[in-house]
Amino acid sequence: MDLNADLGEGFGSWTMGDDGALLDVVTSANVACGFHAGDPSIMRRVTGQAVERGVAIGAHVGYADKPGFGRRFLDIEPAVLRDEVVYQIGALDAFARIAGDRVRYVKPHGALYNTIGTHEEQAAAVVGAIVDYDSSLPVLGLPGSAWLRLAAEAGLTVVHEAFADRAYTPAGTLVSRREAGSVLHDGAEIALRCTAMATGGVISDSTGGSLSLSPRSICVHGDTPGAVEIAVQVRKALEGAGVTLTPFSR
Amino acid sequence: MDLNADLGEGFGSWTMGDDGALLDVVTSANVACGFHAGDPSIMRRVTGQAVERGVAIGAHVGYADKPGFGRRFLDIEPAVLRDEVVYQIGALDAFARIAGDRVRYVKPHGALYNTIGTHEEQAAAVVGAIVDYDSSLPVLGLPGSAWLRLAAEAGLTVVHEAFADRAYTPAGTLVSRREAGSVLHDGAEIALRCTAMATGGVISDSTGGSLSLSPRSICVHGDTPGAVEIAVQVRKALEGAGVTLTPFSR
Amino acid sequence: MDLNADLGEGFGSWTMGDDGALLDVVTSANVACGFHAGDPSIMRRVTGQAVERGVAIGAHVGYADKPGFGRRFLDIEPAVLRDEVVYQIGALDAFARIAGDRVRYVKPHGALYNTIGTHEEQAAAVVGAIVDYDSSLPVLGLPGSAWLRLAAEAGLTVVHEAFADRAYTPAGTLVSRREAGSVLHDGAEIALRCTAMATGGVISDSTGGSLSLSPRSICVHGDTPGAVEIAVQVRKALEGAGVTLTPFSR
Amino acid sequence: MDLNADLGEGFGSWTMGDDGALLDVVTSANVACGFHAGDPSIMRRVTGQAVERGVAIGAHVGYADKPGFGRRFLDIEPAVLRDEVVYQIGALDAFARIAGDRVRYVKPHGALYNTIGTHEEQAAAVVGAIVDYDSSLPVLGLPGSAWLRLAAEAGLTVVHEAFADRAYTPAGTLVSRREAGSVLHDGAEIALRCTAMATGGVISDSTGGSLSLSPRSICVHGDTPGAVEIAVQVRKALEGAGVTLTPFSR
Repeated sequence: MDLNADLGEGFGSWTMGDDGALLDVVTSANVACGFHAGDPSIMRRVTGQAVERGVAIGAHVGYADKPGFGRRFLDIEPAVLRDEVVYQIGALDAFARIAGDRVRYVKPHGALYNTIGTHEEQAAAVVGAIVDYDSSLPVLGLPGSAWLRLAAEAGLTVVHEAFADRAYTPAGTLVSRREAGSVLHDGAEIALRCTAMATGGVISDSTGGSLSLSPRSICVHGDTPGAVEIAVQVRKALEGAGVTLTPFSR
Repeated sequence: MDLNADLGEGFGSWTMGDDGALLDVVTSANVACGFHAGDPSIMRRVTGQAVERGVAIGAHVGYADKPGFGRRFLDIEPAVLRDEVVYQIGALDAFARIAGDRVRYVKPHGALYNTIGTHEEQAAAVVGAIVDYDSSLPVLGLPGSAWLRLAAEAGLTVVHEAFADRAYTPAGTLVSRREAGSVLHDGAEIALRCTAMATGGVISDSTGGSLSLSPRSICVHGDTPGAVEIAVQVRKALEGAGVTLTPFSR
Repeated sequence: MDLNADLGEGFGSWTMGDDGALLDVVTSANVACGFHAGDPSIMRRVTGQAVERGVAIGAHVGYADKPGFGRRFLDIEPAVLRDEVVYQIGALDAFARIAGDRVRYVKPHGALYNTIGTHEEQAAAVVGAIVDYDSSLPVLGLPGSAWLRLAAEAGLTVVHEAFADRAYTPAGTLVSRREAGSVLHDGAEIALRCTAMATGGVISDSTGGSLSLSPRSICVHGDTPGAVEIAVQVRKALEGAGVTLTPFSR
Repeated sequence: MDLNADLGEGFGSWTMGDDGALLDVVTSANVACGFHAGDPSIMRRVTGQAVERGVAIGAHVGYADKPGFGRRFLDIEPAVLRDEVVYQIGALDAFARIAGDRVRYVKPHGALYNTIGTHEEQAAAVVGAIVDYDSSLPVLGLPGSAWLRLAAEAGLTVVHEAFADRAYTPAGTLVSRREAGSVLHDGAEIALRCTAMATGGVISDSTGGSLSLSPRSICVHGDTPGAVEIAVQVRKALEGAGVTLTPFSR
């Protein structure tokens, strides 16, 4: 199993999350590329620390929107989005290579991630950028999303993730954040669900039914209070269950 | 002889200069990387056009200063500058490679170019970034500058340029822009001086004396009225004198 | 009749349109406030020139989106949009007051203008910002738009504009830019239509029928080739027809 | 005595310091205006909270440099700097007025504050902006600085501040941050020094001698660990010594 999290989301004098602590937990780091968050010096530091710890580096590409942290839909022209994604991957890859590795996968961020779940044109733009840059790069996303379908059609390697702390519907889709109970907060429960996902077991869906997810990677969060502690709990539970943690891209 | 010019200096809906016309004149294109000017879509377009025409692509790295077009000194921490230069080269290289070539050299822009002529710490930062990214990349700059000295010491290939439309002191340094006559405007005179530089001849310095410059590349401008016409005149004069025009990086 | 146009849309070293020429034509200037275009020095210059010529200054507020020139929908939180509009009006008002006048009206720009034609939450945010800042400021917009309805409900003075160079449906709405013939290019025809609008006459709608528009202001453009010439033609035709040109806000 | 501190220095999703806690301590709030830090929504919130607590609002104007938090010298053209300062004051004043008060003073931030201590052209630009905007606005700064001299010459009201946690030379100037002991960390000692400054007493200078400072305002910090606690100690000590705390601008 792989554990992924968003990292390098500070900007200049502003910090966000605890990159160092998270890098001791995850096996894949979604590193911000300076568009929604991050800056060149943060990118160098995080890629260096990731390589030291054997954590795989992913390009966490997003809308060029620091004021909104990339969390707001932007009706950008697909061709422009495609170019912006290429730019971000190229910039991050420079630091990854200096650190002795390279960008190993791409995972879009925030509103871009959500948008290309259904927005065909923007989804095609992101896929096109990756094909442009390096068609051997796997992409990490949610099963059933438009962009993973297009990515697969374009010949990219598609990797499915699940969210450690989100409730799922019986259909295996995420419960909307607007609904009560959509986000789980109990570390023990989250760790138990992750262990089930990683060992072929079932989790409870939002109606109390049984749901079987088989993600290749589990996404944990690091930017909320207590988040790192939960991520640590997840890792310990997985290790305790005999699950081997290793980057999906290796 | 090589002819270089700054290109890709628009931003979004704003244009600057006539990239298409200049690409028909020069052999090396200093392409803005989105920090002082340029954006991902412009970078894709200009690198594509450059490769089609056999023009070499250089990373025209600058301060992150769009409001000032990179023409204002910024007292940036050298380590941060180093990271910003890496970021810019990496982003441009992505587009150059998609276009079928790669970044072939680095030339700093504007205030950064001027600053690292004497500012040792910033000069070392730029050199360090190039060594980090790819120490086989040549650097293009003014003879006598601190950064070219440091570049040479770091093992980088150093290439000297001269300015087509600038007056020179007897010592071979540029006459300050604040002085009258520092910038030449007569196309025929400029073309004549360039031909002299390219064929081992001498030009008049600012005191009327003879000055021998032996640049490997001549910088022409494209962002002022009549600039493209002068650049065309320079190219025609060089070709008329039997000078072969070819990228210095080939 | 009032003539309005977008002005001050350069940014740093980049220019857009011919502000000086347009200021000799229009009676109301929609001045960019530094979010989608414009910068403090441009704002000072344009407000100064407007006051010298007796042209009324309007706040041309937009999304914070220089890369997209404010022409892309952004799904911004309404409360944040409200604050951004306040910020822009306040900043422009500083320059308008230094020039000896003050901001006289508000007209949103680009994608924001289009969005709040129907998007109730963003429309309410823009209206709220104007109520916050100065509820005596009139707003300039398209008849039938959500934001003018909300503005009227909030007690703001609502002013209707028509577009000099756009085709209209029989219902008096704009023909979509995606349809052929939606934008008129013939200066004489445009001038004739404006004169009709200003003198109680009718214009041809897109089906050839007669349409009576009674705008309080006509919007002319300045950022396309030949645009200033057309604006001059419109002004001359209106003057020739005995129409008095004066800012609607006076 | 007045206590001032820098506030509103977050940006979008990024936070900096504890604005709420500091607003319970200070009598004057230097509010970031969106150039080096802050954004419209933060400006609205902080100005609203300041007015609720009777804290005076000052425009904390800075270089347009979010990546560097306004802490890096920028060789900006003085005329452009002047316009940027006007823009910032105007924008903040909009929120201050909505909150029921107005901007009461101006204090430059970071590298701009340091630069105009000696840089005559930039100092004159800042002074010019305040004269442009509202020449009744007092300015807050360090005795002996070029900009306060120019401000006084321009007829502005000049207010002197001292720093609670900085060591002073026998000449009454700040010990450079590069020297050991330049910044004090002991809350009790800092509180004692502030009480001395506020009651006509003397403090120890960096050589152990006695130094008499008579600031009208004392600057406390809020963005370092333990800073708010020290600020609270300072306030309590001043109150315990019978010093009345009230905004200098009232």
